[in-house]
Amino acid sequence: MEYQAPERDAQFLLFELFKVQDMWPEIPAFADFSQDLVEAVVSEGGRLASEVIAPTNEVGDQEGCVWEAGEVTTPEAFKGAFAELAQGGWLGLAGNPEYGGQGMPKMLACLVEEMLWAANTSLYLYGTLTVGASLCIDAHGTPEQKSTYLPRMYAGEWCGAMALTEAHAGSDLGIMRTRAEPAADGAYRITGTKIFITGGEHDLAENIIHLVLAKLPDAPGGTRGISLFIVPKFLVNEDGSLGERNSFASGSIEHKMGIRGSATSVMNYDGAIGYLLGEENQGLAAMFTMMNYERLSVGLQGLGAGELAYQQSVSYARDRLQGRSPTGAQNPDGPADSLLVHPDVRRMLMSQRAMTEAGRAFGLFVGMQLDFAKYKGDEVAQARSEVLTPIAKAFLSDSGFDGAVLAQQVFGGHGYIQEWGVEQIVRDVRIAQIYEGTNGIQAFDLIGRKVLRDGGDTLKRLLDEMSQSEVAGDLRGDMDAALDRLMRVTDSLVERTKDDANLPGAVSVDYLNLTGLSIYAWLWARMAAVAGDDDFGKAKRTTAQYFFERLLPRTEGLEKSIMAGTDALMGLDDSQF
Amino acid sequence: MEYQAPERDAQFLLFELFKVQDMWPEIPAFADFSQDLVEAVVSEGGRLASEVIAPTNEVGDQEGCVWEAGEVTTPEAFKGAFAELAQGGWLGLAGNPEYGGQGMPKMLACLVEEMLWAANTSLYLYGTLTVGASLCIDAHGTPEQKSTYLPRMYAGEWCGAMALTEAHAGSDLGIMRTRAEPAADGAYRITGTKIFITGGEHDLAENIIHLVLAKLPDAPGGTRGISLFIVPKFLVNEDGSLGERNSFASGSIEHKMGIRGSATSVMNYDGAIGYLLGEENQGLAAMFTMMNYERLSVGLQGLGAGELAYQQSVSYARDRLQGRSPTGAQNPDGPADSLLVHPDVRRMLMSQRAMTEAGRAFGLFVGMQLDFAKYKGDEVAQARSEVLTPIAKAFLSDSGFDGAVLAQQVFGGHGYIQEWGVEQIVRDVRIAQIYEGTNGIQAFDLIGRKVLRDGGDTLKRLLDEMSQSEVAGDLRGDMDAALDRLMRVTDSLVERTKDDANLPGAVSVDYLNLTGLSIYAWLWARMAAVAGDDDFGKAKRTTAQYFFERLLPRTEGLEKSIMAGTDALMGLDDSQF
Repeated sequence: MEYQAPERDAQFLLFELFKVQDMWPEIPAFADFSQDLVEAVVSEGGRLASEVIAPTNEVGDQEGCVWEAGEVTTPEAFKGAFAELAQGGWLGLAGNPEYGGQGMPKMLACLVEEMLWAANTSLYLYGTLTVGASLCIDAHGTPEQKSTYLPRMYAGEWCGAMALTEAHAGSDLGIMRTRAEPAADGAYRITGTKIFITGGEHDLAENIIHLVLAKLPDAPGGTRGISLFIVPKFLVNEDGSLGERNSFASGSIEHKMGIRGSATSVMNYDGAIGYLLGEENQGLAAMFTMMNYERLSVGLQGLGAGELAYQQSVSYARDRLQGRSPTGAQNPDGPADSLLVHPDVRRMLMSQRAMTEAGRAFGLFVGMQLDFAKYKGDEVAQARSEVLTPIAKAFLSDSGFDGAVLAQQVFGGHGYIQEWGVEQIVRDVRIAQIYEGTNGIQAFDLIGRKVLRDGGDTLKRLLDEMSQSEVAGDLRGDMDAALDRLMRVTDSLVERTKDDANLPGAVSVDYLNLTGLSIYAWLWARMAAVAGDDDFGKAKRTTAQYFFERLLPRTEGLEKSIMAGTDALMGLDDSQF
Repeated sequence: MEYQAPERDAQFLLFELFKVQDMWPEIPAFADFSQDLVEAVVSEGGRLASEVIAPTNEVGDQEGCVWEAGEVTTPEAFKGAFAELAQGGWLGLAGNPEYGGQGMPKMLACLVEEMLWAANTSLYLYGTLTVGASLCIDAHGTPEQKSTYLPRMYAGEWCGAMALTEAHAGSDLGIMRTRAEPAADGAYRITGTKIFITGGEHDLAENIIHLVLAKLPDAPGGTRGISLFIVPKFLVNEDGSLGERNSFASGSIEHKMGIRGSATSVMNYDGAIGYLLGEENQGLAAMFTMMNYERLSVGLQGLGAGELAYQQSVSYARDRLQGRSPTGAQNPDGPADSLLVHPDVRRMLMSQRAMTEAGRAFGLFVGMQLDFAKYKGDEVAQARSEVLTPIAKAFLSDSGFDGAVLAQQVFGGHGYIQEWGVEQIVRDVRIAQIYEGTNGIQAFDLIGRKVLRDGGDTLKRLLDEMSQSEVAGDLRGDMDAALDRLMRVTDSLVERTKDDANLPGAVSVDYLNLTGLSIYAWLWARMAAVAGDDDFGKAKRTTAQYFFERLLPRTEGLEKSIMAGTDALMGLDDSQF
């Protein structure tokens, strides 16, 4: 599928909306990143995505992965594209410079990630797990572990994988069974079976570094007894060369609805040698370093898919001649007008566009919090990033899926046919709502751990700050109403949860959607305020207006739904289902 | 996939909600249908669906159809299942008794159709096109055409197909190119290429009767110059035996996102012999007899898929132990509670259930209008069926898709894996939103042809009658508010369209959703009123309450969105996309 990286929008967000040219010079680690350099990174990332990676997208879906005797062969076209991605240093873009990373801001990485996801979700999955695993090793590893693994992972010579899930326990990690036995050599022996291991086995890199959650023999029960281990496919000799093959292997790969170029393995660890990463029994917290990264990244996956789908549907609508405009023929010499004249087609395109552009701004906003937390030690930003991460994962992936379904609808019957490509986007993006913690889990994390735990304070302070920022005058009233609604609903939840333990879970998804739409209202009101008077800026303001008129009203129904009790929801006996 | 036909709900709808035992005896054609007979039909249809057809569903998806040199081989398991469907007379269930049909009420046929769709969408597609084509021949054919084709089609010995779409013109039939030349023998020679022809070629029946839209040499331009032709794959001799192979063939079949057991052909008609069906240049109107049938049927496809998905997700949620109830362990001796304790899982199940059960009632309500129109000559019912058909097609298929996506979400990671089956439901049902006129076309049909054309009168009289029916007291206020809202919005549209030709298309999909939800509010309020005090009845009332609390509030946002103008929607220049 053809894909054009949204470079102009990236520039708008960086330099007009968030004004990183004023922000970054005050952060020592970013002081050297000139506007020219940043634009070059975005532009080169866009070129890689559209010219090198995007052409492998459809063929990867058709070819899929092949498992044979524990070895996985990825689609042929993936080899060269992944090598170019790796050799360009893109997997170390935001990595630790001490170990060969480029130390770039997360905001910039967000933009590049979106492009790589859009170009080929299956292919970039091998990349994002590598980036996430290296982030985790950087945060929790010993200096020796860092110097052993990070340079090779930043270079994409070794890939990463994350092994959490077991067959009997999807999101419930406390009942995990994989064991880690301490051995005389100071390492551990890992035994157990994990499922759904993306990139657990493949042929794109010479080594695969698994981060595996397991329980020590004397570990406390539940999630407090989980430790994290580095389990490399090939053991690493002292000189950094590859040694023996570790004793674990892929037992099979899954046949999936989509992301067919991404190999999802059942992994059997059979006394595999593993090295403790971080502290004993603190594995879940350590793994969350990776998971939080992956959650934002999966949100960006949804965003990238949404952008790709939008581009396909615009291009189809432009080329396809069918019917006449309700206001009279616009292409009187042709047999019909283009689909673009039809208001319902406009609705589908504008809805995609409004969600995608706001989503891109939102992803960068979350990236900004992460940058502030990491490079300025900003605790408020850290707390905000924790509130915003589940929203980014779920709201961006839901919007990406909804957008892809809309794009498919624009194609009519062709949208259902494989050769047109858009149905692949729907199949591929669907997983983003499920893995890395289902979107239901994200919503529960938001409401339970992130909002109710501090009585809504962190969120409300953020909303307060948003309401005080400079926004487009004509959108001010509706934006304030949206932020007020979210505050009101949040207060009500804090109160009502005291008497109803079922309430948070009952309304969590509606609440997450309400939060996402309300924040988008702020982002659109801000973007409309800073957009210029050129064509690009005018389109921004028109899209902002569309968002307020046609999408933001959903919040009214969401509020009402959240204000309902849980009696009906919980009312059926198990036998009545 | 396992499937249980919803027999109890069918009985509730027929005998408790709509009270057909009082209604049918007054219609001479139905006077003989005792409650026992009706229950036996439902029960036997359910057995066929769950025991004979459902077991072919997954294997059909995996095997798909194979095209070779113009011949199409369907999945092996389809042969026996289709033969049993055909030999049981199910394709003639509502057919004309004069030609071997069973003359059963459409209400009953709706229930059976839903079951057949649920059991195997791909397989039943061959059936529904046969039923639809025979309906069209019955309505517009000569006595000779009827006696030639109907008995064989009711018996499923010959199948039907419908050939409208051409590659350059999807929904825009006016620019069609297929020609029909009158020949000396009184028949016509049809030449042209049609695409997306479901069941255009296959091996399940000894003959396939195509109904083909084409233009006569002297035909007026646009949709007024289209005629309809019967074009059999094998010509029929005077004694009813099969003669020569007609000169058309399948050029290829499509590779699709889903319904892979259903062969979708490109059909090349190469001077094929065709017989005029109905009047010259009146073909589109005649074809609409079939299309209106198919549109309701495709709605029922969505409903069946939604029910199938609901059943899968309930069964998974019941068996899967994960996490603990927010109110304390419900299964303290087990390692975890079942998914059913989690409020967000409840939300997903209850949302599916509320939409599916209301959808089934709605389908029957539309069937009832069709029965009244056909067997009582009731013109009001005829007008209502025309208003309700696009809603049934679009709202039921959208709800079926949304429900399948929710069901898939309940499965977590397993929902994305082919062997669990639920991802197939998502892929299969997606087509229901696209074919037989996309749901955008349905929405435009509703607002343009069915509502605005008579100033909203037909719809408003129906709403008025609904508001006067006996409903559950506790739901009365919210139901009235919903019906009032729809009336208010309808009046506003009638007014505002006078000054804005883009308005109907701009809000059509929101309006269709508003209409669907409002009618569901009435149906739920009615069902809650008539439900008994047994477990089944209590579950109905709980589900009704859930619908009002958690789903109906969407109408508030829809109203606001519909009340917006079209400036932003139509505001971008083509070049700004």
